[in-house]
Amino acid sequence: MKNKTESSLTLEFTPDVIRKKRDGEELSPAEIRGFVKGVSEGSIPDYQISAFLMATFFKGMTLDETVALTDAMSRSGKRFDLDGLKGTKVDKHSTGGIGDKVSIILAPLAAACGLTVPMMAGRGLGHTGGTIDKLESIPGYNTVLSEQAFQKVLSQVGCAIIGQSAEICPADRKLYAMRDVTSTVECIPLITASILSKKIAEGTQGLVLDLKVGNGAFMKTLPQARKLAKTMSQVAKKLGLKFRVVFTCMDQPLGYGAGNALEILECIEVLRNQVIPGKDRGKKNLVSTDLKELTLQLAAHMLELGGITKTVSEGRKLAIARLQDGSAWEKFKEMVSAQGGNLDEFLSTHGQLFKDTYEFKAEKRGYISSMDTQQIGLTLTQLGAGRLKLSDTVDPKIGFVFHKKLGSKVQPGEVILTAVGTSVQTRAQIDASMRESIQISSNRKSVPKLIFEVMK
Amino acid sequence: MKNKTESSLTLEFTPDVIRKKRDGEELSPAEIRGFVKGVSEGSIPDYQISAFLMATFFKGMTLDETVALTDAMSRSGKRFDLDGLKGTKVDKHSTGGIGDKVSIILAPLAAACGLTVPMMAGRGLGHTGGTIDKLESIPGYNTVLSEQAFQKVLSQVGCAIIGQSAEICPADRKLYAMRDVTSTVECIPLITASILSKKIAEGTQGLVLDLKVGNGAFMKTLPQARKLAKTMSQVAKKLGLKFRVVFTCMDQPLGYGAGNALEILECIEVLRNQVIPGKDRGKKNLVSTDLKELTLQLAAHMLELGGITKTVSEGRKLAIARLQDGSAWEKFKEMVSAQGGNLDEFLSTHGQLFKDTYEFKAEKRGYISSMDTQQIGLTLTQLGAGRLKLSDTVDPKIGFVFHKKLGSKVQPGEVILTAVGTSVQTRAQIDASMRESIQISSNRKSVPKLIFEVMK
Repeated sequence: MKNKTESSLTLEFTPDVIRKKRDGEELSPAEIRGFVKGVSEGSIPDYQISAFLMATFFKGMTLDETVALTDAMSRSGKRFDLDGLKGTKVDKHSTGGIGDKVSIILAPLAAACGLTVPMMAGRGLGHTGGTIDKLESIPGYNTVLSEQAFQKVLSQVGCAIIGQSAEICPADRKLYAMRDVTSTVECIPLITASILSKKIAEGTQGLVLDLKVGNGAFMKTLPQARKLAKTMSQVAKKLGLKFRVVFTCMDQPLGYGAGNALEILECIEVLRNQVIPGKDRGKKNLVSTDLKELTLQLAAHMLELGGITKTVSEGRKLAIARLQDGSAWEKFKEMVSAQGGNLDEFLSTHGQLFKDTYEFKAEKRGYISSMDTQQIGLTLTQLGAGRLKLSDTVDPKIGFVFHKKLGSKVQPGEVILTAVGTSVQTRAQIDASMRESIQISSNRKSVPKLIFEVMK
Repeated sequence: MKNKTESSLTLEFTPDVIRKKRDGEELSPAEIRGFVKGVSEGSIPDYQISAFLMATFFKGMTLDETVALTDAMSRSGKRFDLDGLKGTKVDKHSTGGIGDKVSIILAPLAAACGLTVPMMAGRGLGHTGGTIDKLESIPGYNTVLSEQAFQKVLSQVGCAIIGQSAEICPADRKLYAMRDVTSTVECIPLITASILSKKIAEGTQGLVLDLKVGNGAFMKTLPQARKLAKTMSQVAKKLGLKFRVVFTCMDQPLGYGAGNALEILECIEVLRNQVIPGKDRGKKNLVSTDLKELTLQLAAHMLELGGITKTVSEGRKLAIARLQDGSAWEKFKEMVSAQGGNLDEFLSTHGQLFKDTYEFKAEKRGYISSMDTQQIGLTLTQLGAGRLKLSDTVDPKIGFVFHKKLGSKVQPGEVILTAVGTSVQTRAQIDASMRESIQISSNRKSVPKLIFEVMK
């Protein structure tokens, strides 16, 4: 027997709901709830879900529909209750890119500044890396915490980074997997609901979105990105989530490294403000300036959004101070330790990553004028650093070290990047792929800004 | 191991094919064949099939794509080989309506005129009836014949009407079922491929399409219908099928009866050119003029298309002669007998249908100005004469007898229609539904033409 209140609030999903969406009619909140309920419970056949997703791809959703979808998805499983924790809860989400390791520095940094950061992160898929894969290169680091354990780490440390819990947003997990195999990924209301539902369910009060724009990002152009940001901002507002969007450049990898262990190493260097001793990795050329600056900016927005500082520039100053006085590094160590990770073991295993290296060198004199960032990411994935499908495993030691970035001057024979952890057999592939991906021009072109704009 | 020739001709279906269709790119014949092969073999998951169908709904298909789809679907199972049969094979297909019993008269009539008519017909679904359901109200009539048995009846009688064989077009059966539950029915390339693939596989050389237009038809307007006809005509031509489209009116039921046994009875009356003796059914008001005229016109086009007569008007004369001299009636009896049916038993069971009748009467004086034909059909289906889903069973004795048609003058209290075979409990429903569906106006409006136009 159906619960009467529920059945009066939730309609059964029928092919007519697909037809309505197909014909551009607005669905009622009850119809949207019926869809999400049927997806979570498994009562709607997959072929109807995918037909609905494709119709939504073509017809979009109104703001009210997107709000209803996000809300219903956030309630499709458990919602973490973090009300008992002191401090304002603010999280950051990135739409994904190459070398984007910001979260790993940012969560402890923001916590060191007084925020509580309940971060639920994802795994890499396709050309992009994932925070959870990176953290799992630290031996023992447990990314699967119960609500209680998550609350405990947050209360003790002020930050925790975990993978998506199986209890959270089951409707999103189903839809996300289905969108991937039905070519319905690039759809603003579906992206909006997928990101925001998880953030609302994880219990955060505020969210800073790092919206990547460029040839290595999901959003290739600013107008596209602005459209997504506007929808997300409106939906977040309606659902009581404080929200900020920072549009940042993904026309080249972020920082000097891409690859799971390599990125943890780079994060540690930024947090400690020093290069980790070890075998030479041409450190004089390695640049984490962009990574550090972006992390500080995002921290500043989180601090202002969470009310720790009155302005963003005050937030930036506070973040710089907490990075310099070592408290962010301390928070990071506390978080890793609270989640079971062994940093010493990580450093002894991965501290000297320059094994099995292959140096990709410039053929001519000039300036790096473009990097096909998506292709670079896909090459890394093909080498084993990432996943083509969710069931693939990743090899933490594989990565690329970028000695040159956009605008860098190069001489013939000078090393542009070093591939680490790769076998001799893959050299020709790396060479061919990078030769195609990284262009050298005789004149220095202007380098895109790190941060394009901010949407409050 | 894959057959090399096949794998070089057929691509594997991937989500990228869905994306290409979604983005409006033209698919190659090999990609289309890969889709149809995967559908037939069951190697493409249902959710990818339905996403592809919905993308096709929005983006359509080019002529080359539609030709490739039709061709691949026609080859997805067995193709009947009727080359050994004498005479030209010409079939008729109707897009479906209420009271459309033409095939049952037309097949024996065209055979009596010298054509071979290999007719593979369907069952009713939703508001429309189906030829196979109607024929199955004749006790013993076997609509499931093997290719060999089909050939035998065709060779002996010159016509046979069977249901869709399980061996024919498995890809169409799968797609047809899926379109129904994913709101992707109304899509010209998919309709084209569905109809023509079956006709090509059944072995016919020519096809006359009775394209119904009006409020009881799938196509509500002439421009829509012309678009479908144009695509079908182009595809038929490319695949070597002689093709003719007759656009006919479905703004009211065809003939005087709708309901399975009732329609067989009406066909027998037209074929015998006399009213079957029995209990009074207000015969003075019963009109099969439109049914008879449409059948003659369609027969005339079949005869000209098949080269039996030089012109359509000669064809019409020949058809009138074969109806009047009783040879069409003889052919009908031969066909029923060859397919195992017992006409005597049918007539003794259903000859006097006027049992459990309910008379729906006019409330005011005036002229019948409109009939919501789809609603009339749906009411019949709900009463048990048709199916809402394919697994429903039908009751042959349920039907509506129309004493009045569009333009008929009515007096208050005069009978407009008689519901037969229905229970007392359904009277209020019939009354309410017909009161809404059948409008009476004080002035006589112009009655739409039976045949709007012909596309050669």
